[in-house]
Formats: sequence, structure tokens, C-alpha cells
Amino acid sequence: MTKTNPGNFFEDFAVGQVIRHATPRTVTVGDTALYSALYGSRFAVQSSDAFAQSIDYPRAPVDDLLVFHVVFGKTVPDISLNAVANLGYAGGRFLAPVYPGDTLSAVSEVIGLKENSNRKTGVVYVRSTGYKSDGTEVLDYVRWVMVNKRNEASPAPDPVVPVLPDAIDPDALGDACPLIDNGSWDADLSGSRHRFADYAIGECIDHVDGMTVEEAEHQLATRLYQNTAKVHFNQFTEGQGRFGRRLIYGGHVISLARALSFNGLGNAFHVAAINGGRHVAPLFAGDTVFAWSQVLEAAEIEGRYDVGALRLRTIATKNRPCSDFPLIDGEGRYLPEVILDFDYWALVVK
Amino acid sequence: MTKTNPGNFFEDFAVGQVIRHATPRTVTVGDTALYSALYGSRFAVQSSDAFAQSIDYPRAPVDDLLVFHVVFGKTVPDISLNAVANLGYAGGRFLAPVYPGDTLSAVSEVIGLKENSNRKTGVVYVRSTGYKSDGTEVLDYVRWVMVNKRNEASPAPDPVVPVLPDAIDPDALGDACPLIDNGSWDADLSGSRHRFADYAIGECIDHVDGMTVEEAEHQLATRLYQNTAKVHFNQFTEGQGRFGRRLIYGGHVISLARALSFNGLGNAFHVAAINGGRHVAPLFAGDTVFAWSQVLEAAEIEGRYDVGALRLRTIATKNRPCSDFPLIDGEGRYLPEVILDFDYWALVVK
Amino acid sequence: MTKTNPGNFFEDFAVGQVIRHATPRTVTVGDTALYSALYGSRFAVQSSDAFAQSIDYPRAPVDDLLVFHVVFGKTVPDISLNAVANLGYAGGRFLAPVYPGDTLSAVSEVIGLKENSNRKTGVVYVRSTGYKSDGTEVLDYVRWVMVNKRNEASPAPDPVVPVLPDAIDPDALGDACPLIDNGSWDADLSGSRHRFADYAIGECIDHVDGMTVEEAEHQLATRLYQNTAKVHFNQFTEGQGRFGRRLIYGGHVISLARALSFNGLGNAFHVAAINGGRHVAPLFAGDTVFAWSQVLEAAEIEGRYDVGALRLRTIATKNRPCSDFPLIDGEGRYLPEVILDFDYWALVVK
Repeated sequence: MTKTNPGNFFEDFAVGQVIRHATPRTVTVGDTALYSALYGSRFAVQSSDAFAQSIDYPRAPVDDLLVFHVVFGKTVPDISLNAVANLGYAGGRFLAPVYPGDTLSAVSEVIGLKENSNRKTGVVYVRSTGYKSDGTEVLDYVRWVMVNKRNEASPAPDPVVPVLPDAIDPDALGDACPLIDNGSWDADLSGSRHRFADYAIGECIDHVDGMTVEEAEHQLATRLYQNTAKVHFNQFTEGQGRFGRRLIYGGHVISLARALSFNGLGNAFHVAAINGGRHVAPLFAGDTVFAWSQVLEAAEIEGRYDVGALRLRTIATKNRPCSDFPLIDGEGRYLPEVILDFDYWALVVK
Repeated sequence: MTKTNPGNFFEDFAVGQVIRHATPRTVTVGDTALYSALYGSRFAVQSSDAFAQSIDYPRAPVDDLLVFHVVFGKTVPDISLNAVANLGYAGGRFLAPVYPGDTLSAVSEVIGLKENSNRKTGVVYVRSTGYKSDGTEVLDYVRWVMVNKRNEASPAPDPVVPVLPDAIDPDALGDACPLIDNGSWDADLSGSRHRFADYAIGECIDHVDGMTVEEAEHQLATRLYQNTAKVHFNQFTEGQGRFGRRLIYGGHVISLARALSFNGLGNAFHVAAINGGRHVAPLFAGDTVFAWSQVLEAAEIEGRYDVGALRLRTIATKNRPCSDFPLIDGEGRYLPEVILDFDYWALVVK
Repeated sequence: MTKTNPGNFFEDFAVGQVIRHATPRTVTVGDTALYSALYGSRFAVQSSDAFAQSIDYPRAPVDDLLVFHVVFGKTVPDISLNAVANLGYAGGRFLAPVYPGDTLSAVSEVIGLKENSNRKTGVVYVRSTGYKSDGTEVLDYVRWVMVNKRNEASPAPDPVVPVLPDAIDPDALGDACPLIDNGSWDADLSGSRHRFADYAIGECIDHVDGMTVEEAEHQLATRLYQNTAKVHFNQFTEGQGRFGRRLIYGGHVISLARALSFNGLGNAFHVAAINGGRHVAPLFAGDTVFAWSQVLEAAEIEGRYDVGALRLRTIATKNRPCSDFPLIDGEGRYLPEVILDFDYWALVVK
């Protein structure tokens, strides 16, 4: 019997199965500093204990997407080591703030299975939950991945496809953001004068700046998240593969786009929910990432006078500035430079 | 109205104007570890809590240049986003030690303006001050940058050019260095037997070692400082520009030169003041940085039996070792390999 | 007299000589986060305070090899700055756990000297000890290096070659691992179901995954350890040298192999001793590292019901997967892809 983890194949999953993932990870100021160095994020709440305390956080919380990446990374060895493709995310909610010193773990439940007609692969749907060592849930989200079958002849399971929400209901938002003292919000320090009421539905915002990605950077990031997907690290094998090079972890693009979005969304300080996300095309080292966002909805959250919620669609491109808001061609297909289509709720100070 | 920050143009500045900058930043041991990894600095006071405590610091202070870069980074979006060139620094003083956990913010006052004769650009002089969340000032310095005009036809302001000191007066030094117990200074651990009295005015020191810079390294550094200058990050745009490549943040060179200077200046443990600095030529990834220093002055500081001040001129080169102290050619022009001419006061244990 | 450190030459060493090294270094969660980002290690004890506490550690200890690299780095300016080659390690023991906040220093004693027959170089044997600021010893090990003579005509010292153990005695293991509550060991969280008794002597384990190394990564690592060996950093000089490129610090390979070994050795959570190690061939940026291990011995440790010791031989290769356990050719020579042959004791939960 081998002692190495071969990863699960499609036949290894059953609806209702619960998988507790290795390795718990204490998130520290070391991780948050590296996150700053990797993306250059400038949101004041996550950057400054003093700013966070001035609006009634106990201290600067860990960036929401760092929490996401750490939780996601734990699921990789069990869920997607043999994945052909990461197909999508839905129904993601941030449920409690995370602070340096908190230890994060993850558990996943298989909520859907569907063999593909080619009989070689199937789609696995999991709901993954991240929690602290005291049991506090900090994040849950659904993702679905295409996974290889071990044996083409294995019988197909009864197909189960979960019904997933298009978007999180606004009243389910905000658990990971304490009630803040919005009267003490210092717009000079936050870097933006635009509050919740200043954003209009349909408004498009070019985030202007571009960020070129190096191999060392995405490898450092992905290892920091203990994400073991082979395609990100192994040039020897990938050099002989479909692209001839290492693929950059899709979450790296999400974090780059979010950091770039500070320029235009500086007061949208908290990612409260991930409605959906698709990695439309791969990113490679040497490419330059740009981003733009559109406001899809603006919602009040019951009981919250301090913040409102903007539903944002953030599009990231490679090697194409976004002043003309690139998205689809005349036939409705994504333009070739589009790499990410990400739909999320951000909380914005009122 | 756009929500993205277009940066200020020459017309947007007025003498006396005060700008409070975003984003406050809590500096942590995560940042100091990254600073070590980026430059390999070996000064014992900043490297070891135990060493620092043995000479009466409460703990290891944050490296002075890390403080400088964080404060500098904050000023970029407001001062130099549309800058053509960073022309120089003067009159910089470190005013209080910074420890992990301190939150740094910055404010700048416009102290000079002068339109250039081409009417397309002008020079903006600012005094920038970094301070902690309790208001303690930790650093102030003057820099001047050449900034584009929005409109060539805009009228020129009355020229105001501040009188800047050639060097900080020695008696103004030392506020960022507590009185130390120099009798407990352990020369084995500090890595140098040379104390203040061992340095002679005019003495030149080759720092010997060379350090090659990679794209990932300077990008990590510059994002860590939340410095948003586009030229450092965007290969897509820079590839079409003057150099065809990303420019490395000048401050990265200062930190490299300072770290290299440990070899010869190991007991010059604190940068107390920046008298002036010029980035003589650009540095690009793949280049190897070398450095040498000359002792310009040696000064006692009133009331300080523990430390003396050396005024040092540190020259950094690219792709040229410094055993022959390269600087200028026969006509007084900088040699092509010289990239930095930096004049500062360092405190040295007596 | 020069103020720069020229390093010691063979003539500068004498048997019995004791050298206290600069620079003491406080290891923090910033360093451990960087260590994670550089290697992607996933051992639960070092990754999670909560996991560590659940088995009776006071908190997550610093990774053993990070301790090794920091101690090793300090010895470089005094021992191996003029080394031609790092010939080997032996007799390494981890003596006390290290936690974030501890300050590490190092001292070396010269225990052997032998001039080579070419009269140009000699071998220097040192026992280096790392200790905390309170004097607690955390690590000691022997290494021997080939060092240049300053002057070929210098007389040879009487040769002294220390007798070194093939391996550390099992009863000398375990001082750096507190007695753990192995009944609380959570195999889901640790990522492995294989306990001490599950490993058989002679068993070979392919660690499967490959990791490509970038210049920026090994430079960040080696500077983090304040290791000043010139060959790792200076492309200007190395570009004109034997390989035409920078050499990667051998310790970087050890840490990569150890991190890869999680896949198959997930419960071998502590490196207790380094019996020996050889850097068989150089590694360069762009190469992909693979690894496999063989169980050489399995030993009980007196007084320890909680853990057993496995003596492991870990082989790292470049650009060659290890499913066929590559090692030597038909004539007993290392295969050209083998870069590391490392013999150590790991503690494994019972």
C-alpha cells in the first residue's frame, strides 16, 4: 500500500460524504505581511490596527481573500488533486472576522455528483466550510470541479446536481463585519471619498493600474496557502503539458483584481460574499493583470445603519487595459484577454 | 465623475497645501521578516530583540529604511503618480524609534513650486512627515519631483523654491535612538570591532559583495510599502515605454546599498538622517548592485556619550564592483555604472 | 587596515579555536510565514498553534530546518566565506524546541584541520552550536568545508581529523520534542494515517510532487537566513564563473525535500537529528526538485511512549521524478540527476 496521497478520483466521492481536511493553519501577521507584498492591497481596515480600532474593530482583520485562499488550499489534496478543471464557485459567505492568531481548518461535504457523457470524468460539487479552532465558522462556499475517473468502466452514480443561488441574499450578509462606527471613518486615511450612496447601479469603474505577475510570486502565494495543485509548481511536468508552462492559481487573479479595485472602490472594505466566479482563461507568468468592475446591485442590510452592500462584477484581463470595459465579443463570447468573471458582495461604509 | 484616482497634476498643488495621505499601515514582525528576506540586512540591533535589549532598547526597532519606505509609499498616490522624475531628497530626520505594532501614517506639505521653462512640467517640493497613531512624529524629509501639467496653457504659479540644508546639523541627530548602554555592546555579535573613533574622515570603504535583483523581489518590496508608482509593476505598459522594462523603485537600491554596507560599517547601526540622495541612473532586474562609502564627517552629538555620528556618502553601482571606488569621469560626470549617490548620517557606537 | 570582512583562510584556523558568530536573530511568525511561502510545508505541528497545543506543545514550534538555516547562516562569514566546497554534515542534534520570539545565536569550535596534498586548500572541521539568548542550546552539528589557503607556502598544521558518528544514537534523540499527548493526535488534521509502527525498514517512499525553483525564491530564503555566501546572490561574478550562474544554497534543497516528504511522511513531524548530508550536485534556478525516502532504521527512544524514531535517507533529484527511486548507476556513482543524499532521524507519532 502506498503511503503517498494519490488524491481522490470521481469514484471515491459519494453524496453526503464529509471530508475533514489537513492541515490546520494559524494565520499570523507574517501571513498578512506576505499578502501585502504579493498584492499591494491598500484597504485601510485590513492595513492598520489603529484605523480598524477607530471604527470599533478590535484590531485589523485578516484580508477576506487570504481567509478564502487558506480554506480553499486545504481542500485541494482531497477534492481537486485529480481535477481536470475548477469549474466554478457559488454561494460563498464570510461568517466571522478572522484575526492574526486564529487557526483555520476546513471540512467539505459532497453535495452533488454527475458523470460526464464521455464516461472519463465527472463533476463533483462540494460545500466547503472554514472554521476556527473554537468551532466558529468563518466561511462557507460551494465549488464544483471536473474530476477524472479512476476507471472508465466504473458505473455512474445517480446524478445529483445541487440548486445553487445566483447570489447571496443581502440579509445574509455582514456576519464577518462587526457593527462599525461609520461616523469615525476618516476618508483621507481610507483613500476614498465615495460612500455607499455614491455608487449607482450599472456604474462601471476602470481600476486603471496593471500588475505583472512573476513565477516566484504566484508560487510563494500558492505555497503560503498550502495549496498543493501540481500545475502551479512543476515546470518539469507542465513543460511537457498542454500549455508548456505553469498555470497560475486562479485565486491569485482574484486577489490581484481585488487589490487593483482599491482604485475606485477604496471604501468597499469587506468582501462579504462570493456569488459566483469563473476562471475564463489561464494566466501565465509575465502577463499583466488589469481589472474593472460594474455595480450590479446596491442593497441595504437589515439592522445595519453603518454599511451597505454593493454587488459587484469584477472582470480581470491579461495584457489589456480596461478603460473600455472589455468583456464579450459580438457573439457573446468572452474576449480572449478576459481571465476572470467574479461576482461578489462588498460592504461599503455609509 | 470618475471614482478612480487620477493623481495630482502640477496645477493641483499650491504652496502651503497640506495633504493627509492614505493608507495607515501597522508595521509588524511580518514586515521586518520580509525586509530581511529582501535585503539580507545583518545589523544586530534591528535583527535581535535580545541584542537590542542588552543595550537598553525595549526591543529590536524596525529598520529605519523600512520606516522611510512605508512613509514614502503613502505619499506616492497624491504627490508623484504623474511624476516624470523623482529629483532628490533633503533634510530627512528620523525622529522616534518605530517598533513592530506601531501604525504609520503620513502627511505632506507643499513647500515649493516652480514651473519648468518648457511649460509642460513643474517641480513640486514637499515636506513629508510620518507619524504614529498617537501623533508621535517618526520621520520627516523633503523631496522634490518633476510633475506633468494637466494643461500646457495653465498659468505658472509664482515660483517658490525652498532653501534646503546641505546636511542635517549633528545636534539635531539621535532622537530616534534611545541612550544606549554602549559598554554592553558585544562586538562579536554585532560583527564588527570598529567603533566611532576608528573611522577617519575621507576614508573609503568597499562593501565588496554584490546582489543581483529579480523582478519578483523589487515588486514584492514595493508592494509591501504600498507604493503605487506604475513604472515598477506594469510590464505591459513599460514594455512600450522608454526603457522597455519595469524600473526598480529607487528606495530598493538605497536599502540594498545599506544592507551591503554592513560589510565595513557593522556598528553604524542607525540611520539618523538623510542629507540628500540622487538616483543617478535606473536599475533593472538582472543587474547586480555593489556599493562603497566614504566618511565625509565625524561629529559628536551633544549629550551623547554612547554614540557618535558619521556622515557617509554611499555610492551604489550596477554591474561594477567597487574596489576602485567608482564615481565620476574626468569631466565630472557620474560614471555610467553609478546608480545612487546617497548622503546620510549614521550613528556608530562609541 | 581594511574594515571589510575578508573571511578566514585555512591558515586562520586552529584546532580548539572558538568563534562567536554575528548576528543574533530573533525568529518570529514573520519568518515562519516566509518559510511556509518558500517551501509549502504542511506538517500540522509547525503549521498550527491549535494542533500543537492539542498534543501538549505550548504553541507551534519553529520548523527545525528553519532553525538549522538560521544557525548555519551565522557561521558562513567566519567559516566558509572562502570555502571552495561544503563537503558534509554529521552529528547534528536538535536539542530544544524553538518558538517565535526566541533569539538565536551561534558559536563554532574548530575540531579538525587537514591540508590537502595540493597545498592550495585544506579541510576545516567545525562543531557549530546554536543557542537561545538564555543560553539554551537548540542545535549542534559538525560540518567540514574545503577552504582556500591565503598563501600556498604556509606550513601545514598537524592534521587532526575528528571521528564522527555514522548516526546519532536513538537514545540521544527527542530533546527538542516535548512529551506529546499522542492519544489526541488527529490523523485527519495531520494529513496521514500512518504511525510509527506502519513503517517498515527498507521501505521506499516516492514523494511524487515536483517543485521548480526561481532565482527570487532561493535568494529570499538565503537572505532570510542571513547567509552571506557570495555564490548565491551575485550574477555579475557567477556569470563569469564555473557554472555561469548563481548556485542555490544547499539548505534550500534540504527544505524543499523535507516539505515534499510530507506526502508519505505526514506524521514524521520533527527532525530530531541530522546524521549526515551531502550535496551531490548543484541546483540552479529553473530546475524542478523531486524527492524520495528510504526507511533505514526504526528505533524506540527510551522513556518515550509517544513517539518513535525513523532513520530516513532522503534523496532529492533535479528534473527527474522519483517513482523508480533513482540513486546510483551500475558502477556505484550517483546518477547525474541526484542532488542531495540526506540521512536524518525523524520522530513519528506512535
